Amino acid sequence: MNTDFLDRLKRFDIPTCLRVCAGTDGSVTFLLEIMTRHDVTVLTEDQHQVPADEDMASLFNIDVGDDVNCRVVTLIADGVPYVYAKSLAPIGRMPESVRTDMTRADIPIGKILREHDIETRRDFDTIEMVKGESLFGCKSVLSRSYRIVHNGDVLMWINEQMPVDERWNL
Amino acid sequence: MNTDFLDRLKRFDIPTCLRVCAGTDGSVTFLLEIMTRHDVTVLTEDQHQVPADEDMASLFNIDVGDDVNCRVVTLIADGVPYVYAKSLAPIGRMPESVRTDMTRADIPIGKILREHDIETRRDFDTIEMVKGESLFGCKSVLSRSYRIVHNGDVLMWINEQMPVDERWNL
Repeated sequence: MNTDFLDRLKRFDIPTCLRVCAGTDGSVTFLLEIMTRHDVTVLTEDQHQVPADEDMASLFNIDVGDDVNCRVVTLIADGVPYVYAKSLAPIGRMPESVRTDMTRADIPIGKILREHDIETRRDFDTIEMVKGESLFGCKSVLSRSYRIVHNGDVLMWINEQMPVDERWNL
Repeated sequence: MNTDFLDRLKRFDIPTCLRVCAGTDGSVTFLLEIMTRHDVTVLTEDQHQVPADEDMASLFNIDVGDDVNCRVVTLIADGVPYVYAKSLAPIGRMPESVRTDMTRADIPIGKILREHDIETRRDFDTIEMVKGESLFGCKSVLSRSYRIVHNGDVLMWINEQMPVDERWNL
Protein backbone atom coordinates (compact mmCIF):
# COMPACT_ATOMS: atom_id res chain seq x y z
CA MET A 1 0.00 0.00 0.00
CA ASN A 2 1.10 3.52 -0.81
CA THR A 3 0.34 4.98 2.66
CA ASP A 4 1.09 8.50 1.49
CA PHE A 5 -1.68 8.12 -1.13
CA LEU A 6 -4.19 7.02 1.53
CA ASP A 7 -3.15 9.74 3.99
CA ARG A 8 -3.54 12.45 1.37
CA LEU A 9 -6.92 11.10 0.34
CA LYS A 10 -8.21 11.04 3.93
CA ARG A 11 -7.26 14.68 4.41
CA PHE A 12 -9.26 15.96 1.42
CA ASP A 13 -12.53 17.55 2.56
CA ILE A 14 -14.59 16.29 -0.41
CA PRO A 15 -17.86 14.37 -0.89
CA THR A 16 -17.61 10.80 0.41
CA CYS A 17 -18.54 9.18 -2.93
CA LEU A 18 -15.80 11.14 -4.67
CA ARG A 19 -13.26 10.08 -2.06
CA VAL A 20 -14.37 6.47 -2.52
CA CYS A 21 -14.06 6.59 -6.32
CA ALA A 22 -10.67 8.27 -6.07
CA GLY A 23 -9.45 5.72 -3.54
CA THR A 24 -10.86 2.39 -4.61
CA ASP A 25 -8.50 -0.44 -5.51
CA GLY A 26 -11.34 -1.97 -7.53
CA SER A 27 -13.18 -0.96 -10.70
CA VAL A 28 -14.29 2.71 -10.86
CA THR A 29 -16.94 2.06 -13.52
CA PHE A 30 -18.44 -0.63 -11.35
CA LEU A 31 -18.51 1.66 -8.29
CA LEU A 32 -20.18 4.40 -10.32
CA GLU A 33 -22.92 1.98 -11.33
CA ILE A 34 -23.49 1.02 -7.71
CA MET A 35 -23.47 4.63 -6.49
CA THR A 36 -25.75 6.09 -9.16
CA ARG A 37 -27.89 2.97 -9.68
CA HIS A 38 -27.61 3.68 -13.41
CA ASP A 39 -25.65 2.03 -16.21
CA VAL A 40 -22.35 3.74 -16.97
CA THR A 41 -21.62 4.85 -20.52
CA VAL A 42 -18.00 4.93 -21.69
CA LEU A 43 -17.64 7.75 -24.22
CA THR A 44 -14.38 7.44 -26.14
CA GLU A 45 -12.92 10.90 -26.78
CA ASP A 46 -9.79 9.65 -28.50
CA GLN A 47 -8.02 6.40 -29.25
CA HIS A 48 -4.80 5.89 -31.19
CA GLN A 49 -1.49 4.06 -31.07
CA VAL A 50 1.91 5.69 -30.59
CA PRO A 51 5.48 4.39 -30.51
CA ALA A 52 6.77 4.34 -26.91
CA ASP A 53 8.96 7.28 -25.92
CA GLU A 54 11.66 7.03 -23.23
CA ASP A 55 9.19 7.63 -20.36
CA MET A 56 6.72 5.02 -21.60
CA ALA A 57 9.50 2.51 -22.23
CA SER A 58 10.70 3.01 -18.65
CA LEU A 59 7.18 2.86 -17.16
CA PHE A 60 6.28 -0.39 -18.90
CA ASN A 61 9.75 -1.93 -19.18
CA ILE A 62 9.40 -2.16 -22.98
CA ASP A 63 11.60 -0.95 -25.85
CA VAL A 64 11.44 2.60 -27.18
CA GLY A 65 9.30 2.46 -30.32
CA ASP A 66 7.07 -0.42 -29.17
CA ASP A 67 3.36 0.14 -29.86
CA VAL A 68 1.37 1.73 -27.03
CA ASN A 69 -2.40 2.15 -27.08
CA CYS A 70 -3.60 5.58 -25.85
CA ARG A 71 -7.21 5.98 -24.88
CA VAL A 72 -9.15 8.91 -23.47
CA VAL A 73 -12.69 8.30 -22.22
CA THR A 74 -15.43 10.01 -20.23
CA LEU A 75 -17.53 7.95 -17.82
CA ILE A 76 -21.16 9.06 -17.79
CA ALA A 77 -24.07 7.90 -15.63
CA ASP A 78 -27.65 9.14 -16.04
CA GLY A 79 -26.40 11.90 -18.35
CA VAL A 80 -23.87 13.23 -15.82
CA PRO A 81 -20.09 13.01 -16.56
CA TYR A 82 -18.11 11.86 -13.52
CA VAL A 83 -14.65 10.77 -14.65
CA TYR A 84 -12.23 11.75 -17.43
CA ALA A 85 -9.70 8.94 -17.85
CA LYS A 86 -6.54 8.64 -19.91
CA SER A 87 -4.86 5.27 -20.26
CA LEU A 88 -1.66 3.93 -21.77
CA ALA A 89 -1.27 0.24 -22.52
CA PRO A 90 1.56 -1.48 -24.40
CA ILE A 91 -0.02 -3.62 -27.13
CA GLY A 92 2.48 -6.46 -26.81
CA ARG A 93 1.85 -6.71 -23.08
CA MET A 94 -1.84 -7.46 -23.41
CA PRO A 95 -2.88 -11.09 -23.04
CA GLU A 96 -3.85 -12.36 -26.51
CA SER A 97 -7.42 -13.03 -25.43
CA VAL A 98 -8.11 -9.44 -24.36
CA ARG A 99 -6.19 -7.53 -27.03
CA THR A 100 -9.21 -7.03 -29.28
CA ASP A 101 -11.43 -5.82 -26.45
CA MET A 102 -8.71 -3.55 -25.07
CA THR A 103 -8.23 -1.69 -28.31
CA ARG A 104 -11.95 -1.45 -29.01
CA ALA A 105 -13.70 1.67 -27.92
CA ASP A 106 -16.41 1.95 -25.29
CA ILE A 107 -15.70 -1.08 -23.13
CA PRO A 108 -14.66 -0.29 -19.54
CA ILE A 109 -11.27 -1.69 -18.50
CA GLY A 110 -12.65 -3.32 -15.36
CA LYS A 111 -15.27 -5.15 -17.39
CA ILE A 112 -12.67 -6.46 -19.85
CA LEU A 113 -10.41 -7.73 -17.07
CA ARG A 114 -13.36 -9.33 -15.33
CA GLU A 115 -14.82 -11.02 -18.41
CA HIS A 116 -11.47 -12.56 -19.26
CA ASP A 117 -10.88 -13.62 -15.61
CA ILE A 118 -7.66 -11.60 -15.47
CA GLU A 119 -6.14 -11.46 -11.96
CA THR A 120 -4.59 -8.09 -11.18
CA ARG A 121 -3.51 -5.69 -8.52
CA ARG A 122 -3.68 -1.89 -8.69
CA ASP A 123 -0.64 0.08 -7.51
CA PHE A 124 -1.33 3.73 -6.66
CA ASP A 125 1.09 6.43 -7.75
CA THR A 126 -0.19 9.97 -7.18
CA ILE A 127 -3.27 11.86 -6.04
CA GLU A 128 -3.57 15.64 -6.11
CA MET A 129 -5.86 18.60 -6.52
CA VAL A 130 -5.26 20.24 -9.91
CA LYS A 131 -5.54 24.02 -9.91
CA GLY A 132 -6.37 26.27 -12.84
CA GLU A 133 -8.09 23.64 -14.95
CA SER A 134 -11.75 23.09 -15.62
CA LEU A 135 -13.52 19.76 -16.03
CA PHE A 136 -17.18 19.17 -16.82
CA GLY A 137 -17.97 22.76 -15.82
CA CYS A 138 -16.12 22.49 -12.49
CA LYS A 139 -12.96 24.44 -11.62
CA SER A 140 -11.75 22.09 -8.89
CA VAL A 141 -10.35 18.79 -10.15
CA LEU A 142 -9.02 15.73 -8.31
CA SER A 143 -6.46 13.72 -10.28
CA ARG A 144 -5.03 10.29 -9.50
CA SER A 145 -2.71 7.90 -11.31
CA TYR A 146 -2.18 4.19 -10.85
CA ARG A 147 -0.92 1.09 -12.60
CA ILE A 148 -2.77 -2.17 -13.25
CA VAL A 149 -0.34 -5.04 -12.73
CA HIS A 150 -0.78 -8.54 -14.18
CA ASN A 151 1.75 -11.39 -13.94
CA GLY A 152 4.18 -8.92 -12.38
CA ASP A 153 4.12 -6.62 -15.44
CA VAL A 154 2.47 -3.22 -15.79
CA LEU A 155 -0.49 -3.92 -18.09
CA MET A 156 -1.83 -0.37 -18.05
CA TRP A 157 -1.17 3.10 -16.65
CA ILE A 158 -4.26 5.16 -15.88
CA ASN A 159 -4.85 8.79 -14.96
CA GLU A 160 -8.35 9.68 -13.79
CA GLN A 161 -9.65 13.20 -13.25
CA MET A 162 -12.82 13.91 -11.30
CA PRO A 163 -14.64 17.20 -10.73
CA VAL A 164 -14.90 18.22 -7.06
CA ASP A 165 -18.50 19.34 -6.67
CA GLU A 166 -21.94 18.36 -5.43
CA ARG A 167 -22.61 15.90 -8.27
CA TRP A 168 -20.96 13.33 -5.96
CA ASN A 169 -23.62 13.71 -3.27
CA LEU A 170 -25.14 10.38 -4.25
CA MET B 1 -19.39 -10.35 -13.72
CA ASN B 2 -22.31 -11.86 -11.92
CA THR B 3 -24.97 -9.55 -13.44
CA ASP B 4 -27.66 -10.95 -11.16
CA PHE B 5 -25.57 -9.83 -8.18
CA LEU B 6 -25.27 -6.30 -9.57
CA ASP B 7 -28.96 -6.10 -10.50
CA ARG B 8 -30.03 -7.16 -7.04
CA LEU B 9 -27.66 -4.67 -5.43
CA LYS B 10 -28.95 -1.79 -7.54
CA ARG B 11 -32.53 -2.51 -6.51
CA PHE B 12 -31.88 -2.30 -2.76
CA ASP B 13 -33.04 1.01 -1.33
CA ILE B 14 -30.19 1.37 1.17
CA PRO B 15 -27.59 4.05 2.05
CA THR B 16 -25.13 4.63 -0.81
CA CYS B 17 -22.03 3.83 1.26
CA LEU B 18 -23.54 0.52 2.32
CA ARG B 19 -24.36 -0.33 -1.30
CA VAL B 20 -20.78 0.54 -2.25
CA CYS B 21 -19.24 -1.61 0.48
CA ALA B 22 -21.55 -4.49 -0.38
CA GLY B 23 -20.72 -4.19 -4.07
CA THR B 24 -17.04 -3.38 -4.30
CA ASP B 25 -14.70 -5.76 -6.08
CA GLY B 26 -11.84 -4.23 -4.08
CA SER B 27 -10.92 -4.25 -0.40
CA VAL B 28 -13.78 -3.53 2.04
CA THR B 29 -11.46 -2.52 4.89
CA PHE B 30 -9.77 -0.03 2.61
CA LEU B 31 -13.12 1.45 1.51
CA LEU B 32 -14.23 1.78 5.13
CA GLU B 33 -11.07 3.76 5.90
CA ILE B 34 -11.76 6.09 2.99
CA MET B 35 -15.44 6.51 3.89
CA THR B 36 -14.98 7.11 7.60
CA ARG B 37 -11.58 8.83 7.41
CA HIS B 38 -10.57 6.69 10.39
CA ASP B 39 -8.32 3.69 10.78
CA VAL B 40 -10.19 0.39 10.71
CA THR B 41 -9.72 -2.06 13.57
CA VAL B 42 -10.06 -5.77 12.85
CA LEU B 43 -11.43 -7.46 15.97
CA THR B 44 -11.00 -11.23 15.77
CA GLU B 45 -14.03 -12.96 17.31
CA ASP B 46 -12.84 -16.47 16.54
CA GLN B 47 -10.09 -18.25 14.68
CA HIS B 48 -9.47 -21.97 14.42
CA GLN B 49 -8.66 -24.71 11.94
CA VAL B 50 -11.01 -27.47 10.86
CA PRO B 51 -10.70 -30.48 8.55
CA ALA B 52 -12.56 -29.78 5.28
CA ASP B 53 -16.02 -31.33 5.03
CA GLU B 54 -17.61 -32.33 1.69
CA ASP B 55 -18.87 -28.80 0.97
CA MET B 56 -15.52 -27.15 1.69
CA ALA B 57 -13.66 -29.76 -0.34
CA SER B 58 -15.96 -29.05 -3.29
CA LEU B 59 -15.74 -25.26 -2.89
CA PHE B 60 -11.95 -25.20 -2.80
CA ASN B 61 -11.25 -28.30 -4.91
CA ILE B 62 -9.26 -29.86 -2.06
CA ASP B 63 -9.50 -33.26 -0.31
CA VAL B 64 -11.94 -33.93 2.51
CA GLY B 65 -9.94 -33.61 5.74
CA ASP B 66 -7.47 -30.99 4.45
CA ASP B 67 -6.85 -28.14 6.90
CA VAL B 68 -9.06 -25.09 6.49
CA ASN B 69 -8.60 -21.85 8.43
CA CYS B 70 -11.85 -20.34 9.75
CA ARG B 71 -11.85 -16.74 10.87
CA VAL B 72 -14.61 -14.49 12.16
CA VAL B 73 -13.87 -10.78 12.52
CA THR B 74 -15.66 -7.49 13.13
CA LEU B 75 -14.50 -4.39 11.27
CA ILE B 76 -14.70 -1.28 13.44
CA ALA B 77 -14.01 2.36 12.56
CA ASP B 78 -14.13 5.20 15.09
CA GLY B 79 -15.76 2.86 17.61
CA VAL B 80 -18.60 1.87 15.26
CA PRO B 81 -18.90 -1.74 14.01
CA TYR B 82 -19.69 -1.92 10.29
CA VAL B 83 -18.98 -5.43 9.02
CA TYR B 84 -19.13 -8.94 10.48
CA ALA B 85 -17.04 -11.21 8.25
CA LYS B 86 -16.54 -14.97 8.20
CA SER B 87 -13.83 -16.46 6.02
CA LEU B 88 -12.68 -19.94 5.06
CA ALA B 89 -9.23 -20.50 3.59
CA PRO B 90 -7.51 -23.81 2.87
CA ILE B 91 -4.08 -23.69 4.54
CA GLY B 92 -2.30 -25.58 1.77
CA ARG B 93 -3.64 -23.19 -0.86
CA MET B 94 -2.04 -20.10 0.67
CA PRO B 95 1.18 -18.87 -0.92
CA GLU B 96 4.02 -19.74 1.47
CA SER B 97 4.89 -16.08 1.93
CA VAL B 98 1.45 -15.08 3.22
CA ARG B 99 0.58 -18.15 5.29
CA THR B 100 1.85 -16.68 8.56
CA ASP B 101 0.00 -13.39 8.08
CA MET B 102 -3.18 -15.16 6.95
CA THR B 103 -3.43 -17.27 10.09
CA ARG B 104 -2.53 -14.40 12.39
CA ALA B 105 -5.35 -12.44 13.93
CA ASP B 106 -6.18 -8.81 13.34
CA ILE B 107 -4.67 -8.25 9.90
CA PRO B 108 -7.21 -7.38 7.16
CA ILE B 109 -7.19 -9.75 4.17
CA GLY B 110 -6.88 -6.91 1.65
CA LYS B 111 -3.81 -5.58 3.42
CA ILE B 112 -2.14 -9.00 3.43
CA LEU B 113 -2.77 -9.52 -0.30
CA ARG B 114 -1.51 -6.04 -1.06
CA GLU B 115 1.65 -6.24 1.04
CA HIS B 116 2.63 -9.50 -0.62
CA ASP B 117 1.78 -8.18 -4.11
CA ILE B 118 -0.75 -10.96 -4.67
CA GLU B 119 -2.77 -10.56 -7.87
CA THR B 120 -6.39 -11.63 -7.48
CA ARG B 121 -9.89 -11.34 -8.74
CA ARG B 122 -13.07 -11.43 -6.66
CA ASP B 123 -15.98 -13.56 -7.91
CA PHE B 124 -19.36 -12.71 -6.42
CA ASP B 125 -21.74 -15.45 -5.35
CA THR B 126 -24.78 -14.19 -3.44
CA ILE B 127 -26.27 -11.05 -1.94
CA GLU B 128 -29.45 -10.97 0.12
CA MET B 129 -31.35 -9.32 2.93
CA VAL B 130 -31.39 -11.60 5.96
CA LYS B 131 -34.58 -11.52 7.99
CA GLY B 132 -35.03 -12.36 11.66
CA GLU B 133 -31.43 -11.79 12.68
CA SER B 134 -29.88 -8.92 14.56
CA LEU B 135 -26.40 -7.47 14.00
CA PHE B 136 -24.74 -4.66 15.94
CA GLY B 137 -28.13 -3.61 17.35
CA CYS B 138 -29.80 -3.55 13.91
CA LYS B 139 -32.58 -5.92 12.82
CA SER B 140 -32.02 -5.52 9.07
CA VAL B 141 -28.91 -7.23 7.73
CA LEU B 142 -27.37 -7.35 4.25
CA SER B 143 -25.30 -10.45 3.55
CA ARG B 144 -22.99 -11.18 0.63
CA SER B 145 -20.60 -13.97 -0.27
CA TYR B 146 -17.70 -14.06 -2.71
CA ARG B 147 -14.51 -15.90 -3.53
CA ILE B 148 -10.98 -14.48 -3.82
CA VAL B 149 -9.25 -16.21 -6.73
CA HIS B 150 -5.48 -16.40 -7.19
CA ASN B 151 -3.67 -18.36 -9.92
CA GLY B 152 -7.04 -19.78 -10.94
CA ASP B 153 -7.64 -21.35 -7.51
CA VAL B 154 -10.07 -20.23 -4.81
CA LEU B 155 -7.80 -18.80 -2.12
CA MET B 156 -10.60 -17.76 0.21
CA TRP B 157 -14.37 -17.78 0.61
CA ILE B 158 -15.84 -14.80 2.46
CA ASN B 159 -19.27 -13.97 3.84
CA GLU B 160 -19.81 -10.40 5.00
CA GLN B 161 -22.82 -9.16 6.95
CA MET B 162 -23.62 -5.47 7.27
CA PRO B 163 -26.34 -3.73 9.31
CA VAL B 164 -28.81 -1.73 7.21
CA ASP B 165 -29.17 1.53 9.11
CA GLU B 166 -28.11 5.17 9.27
CA ARG B 167 -24.55 4.43 10.41
CA TRP B 168 -23.75 4.24 6.67
CA ASN B 169 -24.70 7.88 6.07
CA LEU B 170 -21.04 8.85 5.82
